[in-house]
Amino acid sequence: MPKAVTAYCMQNVVYDQTMRCANFIVKKPMVIGHECAGIIEEVGSEVKSLEVGDRVALEPGISCGHCSLCKAGSYNLCPEMRFFGSPPTKGSLAHKVVHPAKLCYKLPDNVSLEEGAMCEPLSVGVHACRRANVGPETNVMIMGSRPIGLVTLLAARAFGAPRIIITDVDVQRLSIARNLGADETVKVSTDIEDVNTDVGKIQNAMGSGIDVSFDCVGFDKTMSTALNATRPGSKVCLIGLAKTEMTVALTPAAAREVDVIGTFRYRSTWPLCIEFLRSGKIDVKSLITHRFGFTQKEIEDAFEISAQGGNAIKVMFNL
Amino acid sequence: MPKAVTAYCMQNVVYDQTMRCANFIVKKPMVIGHECAGIIEEVGSEVKSLEVGDRVALEPGISCGHCSLCKAGSYNLCPEMRFFGSPPTKGSLAHKVVHPAKLCYKLPDNVSLEEGAMCEPLSVGVHACRRANVGPETNVMIMGSRPIGLVTLLAARAFGAPRIIITDVDVQRLSIARNLGADETVKVSTDIEDVNTDVGKIQNAMGSGIDVSFDCVGFDKTMSTALNATRPGSKVCLIGLAKTEMTVALTPAAAREVDVIGTFRYRSTWPLCIEFLRSGKIDVKSLITHRFGFTQKEIEDAFEISAQGGNAIKVMFNL
Amino acid sequence: MPKAVTAYCMQNVVYDQTMRCANFIVKKPMVIGHECAGIIEEVGSEVKSLEVGDRVALEPGISCGHCSLCKAGSYNLCPEMRFFGSPPTKGSLAHKVVHPAKLCYKLPDNVSLEEGAMCEPLSVGVHACRRANVGPETNVMIMGSRPIGLVTLLAARAFGAPRIIITDVDVQRLSIARNLGADETVKVSTDIEDVNTDVGKIQNAMGSGIDVSFDCVGFDKTMSTALNATRPGSKVCLIGLAKTEMTVALTPAAAREVDVIGTFRYRSTWPLCIEFLRSGKIDVKSLITHRFGFTQKEIEDAFEISAQGGNAIKVMFNL
Amino acid sequence: MPKAVTAYCMQNVVYDQTMRCANFIVKKPMVIGHECAGIIEEVGSEVKSLEVGDRVALEPGISCGHCSLCKAGSYNLCPEMRFFGSPPTKGSLAHKVVHPAKLCYKLPDNVSLEEGAMCEPLSVGVHACRRANVGPETNVMIMGSRPIGLVTLLAARAFGAPRIIITDVDVQRLSIARNLGADETVKVSTDIEDVNTDVGKIQNAMGSGIDVSFDCVGFDKTMSTALNATRPGSKVCLIGLAKTEMTVALTPAAAREVDVIGTFRYRSTWPLCIEFLRSGKIDVKSLITHRFGFTQKEIEDAFEISAQGGNAIKVMFNL
Repeated sequence: MPKAVTAYCMQNVVYDQTMRCANFIVKKPMVIGHECAGIIEEVGSEVKSLEVGDRVALEPGISCGHCSLCKAGSYNLCPEMRFFGSPPTKGSLAHKVVHPAKLCYKLPDNVSLEEGAMCEPLSVGVHACRRANVGPETNVMIMGSRPIGLVTLLAARAFGAPRIIITDVDVQRLSIARNLGADETVKVSTDIEDVNTDVGKIQNAMGSGIDVSFDCVGFDKTMSTALNATRPGSKVCLIGLAKTEMTVALTPAAAREVDVIGTFRYRSTWPLCIEFLRSGKIDVKSLITHRFGFTQKEIEDAFEISAQGGNAIKVMFNL
Repeated sequence: MPKAVTAYCMQNVVYDQTMRCANFIVKKPMVIGHECAGIIEEVGSEVKSLEVGDRVALEPGISCGHCSLCKAGSYNLCPEMRFFGSPPTKGSLAHKVVHPAKLCYKLPDNVSLEEGAMCEPLSVGVHACRRANVGPETNVMIMGSRPIGLVTLLAARAFGAPRIIITDVDVQRLSIARNLGADETVKVSTDIEDVNTDVGKIQNAMGSGIDVSFDCVGFDKTMSTALNATRPGSKVCLIGLAKTEMTVALTPAAAREVDVIGTFRYRSTWPLCIEFLRSGKIDVKSLITHRFGFTQKEIEDAFEISAQGGNAIKVMFNL
Repeated sequence: MPKAVTAYCMQNVVYDQTMRCANFIVKKPMVIGHECAGIIEEVGSEVKSLEVGDRVALEPGISCGHCSLCKAGSYNLCPEMRFFGSPPTKGSLAHKVVHPAKLCYKLPDNVSLEEGAMCEPLSVGVHACRRANVGPETNVMIMGSRPIGLVTLLAARAFGAPRIIITDVDVQRLSIARNLGADETVKVSTDIEDVNTDVGKIQNAMGSGIDVSFDCVGFDKTMSTALNATRPGSKVCLIGLAKTEMTVALTPAAAREVDVIGTFRYRSTWPLCIEFLRSGKIDVKSLITHRFGFTQKEIEDAFEISAQGGNAIKVMFNL
Repeated sequence: MPKAVTAYCMQNVVYDQTMRCANFIVKKPMVIGHECAGIIEEVGSEVKSLEVGDRVALEPGISCGHCSLCKAGSYNLCPEMRFFGSPPTKGSLAHKVVHPAKLCYKLPDNVSLEEGAMCEPLSVGVHACRRANVGPETNVMIMGSRPIGLVTLLAARAFGAPRIIITDVDVQRLSIARNLGADETVKVSTDIEDVNTDVGKIQNAMGSGIDVSFDCVGFDKTMSTALNATRPGSKVCLIGLAKTEMTVALTPAAAREVDVIGTFRYRSTWPLCIEFLRSGKIDVKSLITHRFGFTQKEIEDAFEISAQGGNAIKVMFNL
C-alpha cells in the first residue's frame, strides 16, 4: 500500500470554537488534513496497479462498498465513510499514510505532486459541475471567490461554460477570480436587504440569463441572491455550508422551477481532474500562494498565514 | 374555437384578505376558474382537429410560443402566460369560453366531462411525478392530504410507485387518502419542534427508504420533515406554496445530496391524464364529493361548502 | 453461503450442433443452468444478511467488482464475469450450489421459490425496459412471443406501458401473449419481402405511434420491421441474438433518429423483480407450464419437452 | 424578412446519376444550396428581432411547429419540413432569399458572414455531439475526414472531448485532420476483411478506450469498425449515409450494449455554433479552402473544383 506523502495542501475545513465542523466534533488531539499527493514507498502483496516510486494523488475517503449508495455509485454519501481528518479518522498531514491502492491515482509526468494534491479541492468543483450538468451551453454564476469558488470557476470553464460571473464582498478576491478567467465579477454586500440590488447588478453584468448558480458560501444572502438571479427552469447548486438553517424564499424559486441541487465532496473525480491537469485545460498552480517545509516552526507559520486569510489561497507543505 | 363548458370543477386557488395569491392580485371583479371541460359549440375556420359536438377537456394556459422557455418545451414557465382566472385573464367558470383549439383535448367515450375537468388538478400531480422521475423503483412520501396531495397520490401510483406514505394533521383526510390507495398514513403535527418525532414515525411506517417526497403544503414544518425523512441522494419536490419565505435546514439536506425540485402547474400533461382515465389506471370520480347546477343560489352554496372544507374534496358544477 | 436449490427453471440458452452459443463453447461435460431459487443450508462466517432456512432467489453472475464497468454499475458487461452455466463456469442445475451472499435475495412470504426462480428470465425484460426507458407514456411493440418476448411484455406492462402490441409467426404463441395482457397481436411472416406489409398491419393495429420496439428474436426480418415501424426520434431495443451479422436498412433508421439500444442480461434487477412479484404487478405463474422432479428420468423428459417447444413456456424442476 | 445572402458555402449533398439523394429526387431544374449567411435587406411588418443591415446566419429548415415532434422540440424530424434545396423546396444559392425571421440569427461583430455560413455544416457536428452526450470525459473516434468528419472533430473538441482519433483511407485528409487538432490519426482500408486489423491499429493508437464513435461515412466497413472499436456500454453515432442497407455484426454490439445513435441534420444549434465562433473555441476559417464570386464562370469553376475533391474542403461564394 502507498505510504509516502511529499506534497501537502493546506485544508480549508473550519472548526468553530467548540472544535465542531458540521456533524464532526474533534474530541481529542488528532492528525488533520485530507489534500495530498506523494510517492509510493511500499505496496501490499496483492497490489498490482502500483509500484514503489510511483507518484500518486490520494482520494481521501474510504467507503464501505456494500451499502445501497455505494452500489449505486454514490459512494460519497456512504454512511460508513472513513475520511482523512474527519473525526475519528486520522488525517493525512503526516510524513506517511497507509491508504488503499484503488484510491491512489498515478500522476502523468507533466503533473507535479503539488498539482496532484490540488485534485482534492478541484474535485469539489468538478463534482458540483457534474451534478449541475454544466456544459458549453451553461452560463454560470459563482457566489464566493474563496478557494472553493475558485476551483468551481476553473472546473466550470473546463466543462465548457461560455460565460462565468463570480461574486464576493472583497474586491481583492474578485481580482484574483478575474485573473483566473472569470468573465465578469460583481462586488456584493452581506446585507440581506440588498438582494434585489445585487441581483440587478448581476443581471446587468451578464445580459444573458444565468443557467446555473453555485453558492460556494451558504448564507441566507448568497442563497437568496442565487435563487433570484437564476433563470426559470434551471438550477442553484449549494456547495458552501456556512449556515445550517437558512431563511430563504424557497417557494417562489420552486414556482419558477429553479431546483436546489445539493453536493457533498465528490465521487469518481480523480481521473478527470488529472486529465484536466495533464491537458492543461486547468492550471491550478496559481492557486498555490505559499509553500512551507514540514518543520514545527514552518507548520506553525503556515497555519498562521492560512488563518489570517489575506492573499493566501492554498498553502502547500513539501515534506 | 370551442365555446361551451358543461362541467366545471371548483378551483382551489386561495386568495387572502387583500385578494392576493402569490404574485396575482385581484383588482376588480373578474371571472375566476380554471378547471373545466365541455362540448364544442363552434370552431374557427382553420380548425381541423375539432368539430362541433366534440367533448373536450381544456388546458387553461395560453403561452407565447416564442420565448426561449416555450421553445425548450417549458411553456408553463413562459413569462407571457395568460391563464384562466389568473388576473388579469378571465377564468373559465362561465357558460362559454373561447379557447385555442390546440388546448382542447378530445375525451374518449368512457371518460365523462366531469372526469375531463379533473385533468387540471390531476396534471399538477402528473407534472410533479415527471419532474421527480417517479417510477416502479420510487418509494414516495406525500405531505398533505388535501386535493393536491390526493392527485399526487393517484399520479404517483400510476407512475408505478411501489409504496406510498401520506401525512396530514387531520385523521379524516388521512382516511380518505388510505381509501384512495395510500399504503401508509401518518398523522403529523404543525409544531416545528416535532420534526424529529414525525420523521421517526414516518421511517417506522415505511421501513424502506423514501426516494422522493412531495411537499404539497409548503410550511417550514412540512419541508423540514421532508428534507429529513428522504434518503440521501434523492429528491424533495415542493408543490405547495403556503409560505413564501421558509426557514429550513437546507445545508444539511444539500450535504446529503437531497435536491429540492420546484414545480409550477404543468406542461404537456393532458394526453397522459386522459390516457390514465381511459385505461382506468386513475379513477378521479371519488374525488368529486359535491355537485351543483349553475344557478345563483347553487353557486353561492357551492362556494360556501368549498370554503368550509369539511369532507369536500372537489365541488363540481354541471351547467 | 447459500447452498440449496429447490426450485429450478429450465433455461433457454440454445447451443448449436457444435455446442456453441454466442462466444461460449462447451468443450467438456458440464453442469448447466442459471435460473434458480432455493433455501439456505449453510452460511459463511462473515455473512450477516442471510440465515439458514432463508428462501432466496439467486442472481447467477459473479462480476469482478474492480474494473471500470463494475465501478460504473454496469457490472453485467464485466469482462471477468463468471456466470452459472456459461463455460467454463458450472451452472446451477444441481442439488446445491455455493454462491456469494450478496447475490442471494430473500423472498417475501407471498413469493414462492418457483416464482423466485423466474426472477432470472424476468430480469431480462426488466433490464430492457430500463434501458429503453419505458414508462406510462411509452407505447411498446414486442417482436417475438417466446419466453423472452413474454417476460418483456410483463415487464413493459409493469413499467406502465399504456399499449403493447406483440408479434410472432405462430398464432398459438400470440394467443398466449394476449392472455398475458398484450393489447394487440399481429401474425407476421419470416419473409424479408413482407417487411412493409407487416409494418402496415402493425400500424393499423396500433393507430398511435410505437415509441419503443423490443426485438426479442434478432433476425434481419424482425429488426427491419422494428426499425420501420417505430416512430421517429425513438428506440429499438435489440434483445434476441438469433443472427450475428444482420443486413438491415440502418441508415434510414438513423436518419429518423431511431436508435438501436443493446441489452445484455441485466444488472441490479432482483429487488425490483421481487417487488413486482410481491405486489402482484407481475404474475409469472402462468409462464410455468410444466413441472418435474429431479430424477434422471424426469430430467430427460423435461429436456425433451422443452426441446419440442409446443406449448411449453417454462419447465420447472422442484428438487 | 431577411433577403440578402452574401456569403455562401458549397453544399455537400451528393445526388447520384438518377438525381436522387436519400429520399429526395430532383425532378426538374431547381435552385440548390442550404449553407448561407447574409445581410438583411427588408423585414416583414411584424418582425421585431431584426433590422435592415443586420448580419445573419440562416438556419435552412422550416418545420410545421404543430406536430408532436415539433412540440417535443425534435423539429428536425418534422414530416412537413421544408428545407432549402431539398426538392421540391428551392435552395438558398441565390442573390436573395425570403426566410422566417426566427431562423435568421444575428452574428456578433467578430464573426464574419463566411463563418456564419459555416454554422450549417458545423451544426451537424454539434447535433451529433449532443445526441452522443460528448463531454470532458468522452474519448472520441471519428470515421472519415471529409467535411462532416472535420466539423464533428471541431465540435467534439469544443464539447470537451479529451482525446480524439480520426480515421480515413486518405493520408492527405488525415493530415488536414491532425492540423485541425486530432490527437491521433489512423489510415484504414476499404476492405471489410481488415476490420480486426484496423480495430487493432485504432486501439493501439488510443490506449484508453473509445467512449463514442461517429461514423461520418456510413459503409459496412466503417460501421463494423466503429461497433468493434467502441468500449462496452457506450455509443456509435451514425451520421454518414453512404449506404442504405448495411450488413454489420449488430447483435454482438448489442450484447456489449454498444448503442447505435441516429442523427439527422440538427435542431436548435445556431446559437451554440455562433457562441463557439465568437469565443474562438471553434475556428472554421481553415475549412474554407476556395472562394469564388457569383458569376456564371466562377460558379462553374467552383462546382468543378468541389466535384474533383482534391484539397477542397469548403468552397465559398461571396456575392
